Amino acid sequence: MDPAQEVLGGNRLALARLLTQVENGSSQGLAALQVLFPHTGRAHRIGVTGPPGTGKSSLVNQLALHLRRSESPRRVAILAVDPTSPFTGGAILGDRVRMRDLSGDPGVFIRSMASRGSLGGLAAATSGLAAVLDAAGFDVILIETVGAGQAEVDIARLAHTVLVVEAPGLGDDIQAIKAGILEIADILVINKADQPGVEATERALLGMLQLAHPTPHVFPGERKQHHLPDSPAMQAAALESAQFNDWIPPVQRTVATEGGGIPELAAHIEQHAAHLRANGGWERREAARLQSELDELLQQALIARWRRETPEAHYDTVLERLTQRQLSPWQAVKELLEGDWL
Amino acid sequence: MDPAQEVLGGNRLALARLLTQVENGSSQGLAALQVLFPHTGRAHRIGVTGPPGTGKSSLVNQLALHLRRSESPRRVAILAVDPTSPFTGGAILGDRVRMRDLSGDPGVFIRSMASRGSLGGLAAATSGLAAVLDAAGFDVILIETVGAGQAEVDIARLAHTVLVVEAPGLGDDIQAIKAGILEIADILVINKADQPGVEATERALLGMLQLAHPTPHVFPGERKQHHLPDSPAMQAAALESAQFNDWIPPVQRTVATEGGGIPELAAHIEQHAAHLRANGGWERREAARLQSELDELLQQALIARWRRETPEAHYDTVLERLTQRQLSPWQAVKELLEGDWL
Repeated sequence: MDPAQEVLGGNRLALARLLTQVENGSSQGLAALQVLFPHTGRAHRIGVTGPPGTGKSSLVNQLALHLRRSESPRRVAILAVDPTSPFTGGAILGDRVRMRDLSGDPGVFIRSMASRGSLGGLAAATSGLAAVLDAAGFDVILIETVGAGQAEVDIARLAHTVLVVEAPGLGDDIQAIKAGILEIADILVINKADQPGVEATERALLGMLQLAHPTPHVFPGERKQHHLPDSPAMQAAALESAQFNDWIPPVQRTVATEGGGIPELAAHIEQHAAHLRANGGWERREAARLQSELDELLQQALIARWRRETPEAHYDTVLERLTQRQLSPWQAVKELLEGDWL
Repeated sequence: MDPAQEVLGGNRLALARLLTQVENGSSQGLAALQVLFPHTGRAHRIGVTGPPGTGKSSLVNQLALHLRRSESPRRVAILAVDPTSPFTGGAILGDRVRMRDLSGDPGVFIRSMASRGSLGGLAAATSGLAAVLDAAGFDVILIETVGAGQAEVDIARLAHTVLVVEAPGLGDDIQAIKAGILEIADILVINKADQPGVEATERALLGMLQLAHPTPHVFPGERKQHHLPDSPAMQAAALESAQFNDWIPPVQRTVATEGGGIPELAAHIEQHAAHLRANGGWERREAARLQSELDELLQQALIARWRRETPEAHYDTVLERLTQRQLSPWQAVKELLEGDWL
């Protein structure tokens, strides 16, 4: 049977196999992804990110457990991505033993991704895995990633809802870094909230939120109230405006190891999804994600085509002249693109 | 006078102005870079990286001071790059007040780079600034970068010598992350070595080194002894082999705030440069860096050319069909590249 059809039919073994193929960028994986693509777009993709040491894995496990035990249990996939180890393909997250409560539950699927993937960067590979899990019918995909840099941001952008996880007492430097990461956060989580310093961390986060969203009468977690204008054109304009779409990220304390704050966090996630669906934000995030994937693939295809068309010896000669500093990098590119080797 | 000539002539104001132009990717900046390029390749580029909170800035300042006060003082440039804040263009490093001892010294030039640059990523922009400083005659360029991810690795790769800075007591998670970053380290620094936990950090680093370089009779900081074979062909092969080039990264404790361990660290840096020069590693690192810059520029040029040649409306139509899931991303790329809109 066709691997894509097996995955659509709920075969877990076929799913695991296909995820590996997609991660490795194999041609079977790519072929299956094309078949699966029309079946994607249903899952709620939730990014979970933040500095090391904040207990993201425990938080993700507890969220998954909560979603499984709710009145209308959701099928949950966990995708743990580690961009911090580009050489060893480090499996920091993967090595951790996942909660016993989740294992054996057919409504849960857990996957660690340690390698960089070959689909063109970690974000692209992660997106491919998320697409497979989406098509396989998981309602929620929790994408967990560690680090504090561009890779983390790229991965977080794959999600509809981004949780940024902090913990008390991680030091001033890490506090400072939050400034950048804050701008991708839809929900701020202070995990390990039973530890000393939680008030200071909360104050710091609220202070930064205040700077980012200087609206005095709105409390975190509350949506600003806006009313749609009557005319369709003005409605469209209002929907596009940043103001209408303003969502003040709530700050939620959790103690993931004991499940503390998890129901409240799950409620915030629900509210954020409802908010996105209500104002068109869901579609806009999907469109932005698909466009960046398209641009990424296009880039790869252009380079592959150029490589096929250019004799390797010509490239080597130009590179040699560059290394000898007879050509600057810009002159080298010009030589390569002008095609005088034809 | 031509900006590039002014920079070659030692005009600091022209240097500062050109660095801004190169960082912004302006056409004047690019034109000057082309003039300066043949004058590059002399400076020792030293990357300094590691997690936040390890005191990298103090360490860089003290190293610069040491190099200025040595018997044959070197001209030192400091390039502080912050890849962790892609949105705000955060100036974590830039905001810090640099040591009073360095200010006013004409043999020192300090530059913070907070924006992402538009030369195609932070690494490319950093490389452009380093090239200008190299051409301007600085003997040593200290490239300081914070974070723990791909951006950091890309930036570290611009250097001949990479220092990875750690500090005692940064927690288990951060310890684990070292596994990846270790593979780019030429020298390991334990800064803040007067703090508790320094022995544990040192043990952990030595343990990881032992795993990475399982050669029992070589101590960190010592080069493995190899003798070149007689035949030129075999010499070339030996030079290419990883074994000959093996350099066991030394582990150096420092207390940068008080200057402790800085002379020893500077000696390790000298030894590493001598090691690279002795076995052709210097040229290989230069060639690898220039090739990756060439590939990066080539990629950008290919995309720019494709954009010029493709009607925007065609792209928009394909994107719309992708968003509607009528096309998969791969089918969309195929439509865009087949040029049936011609």
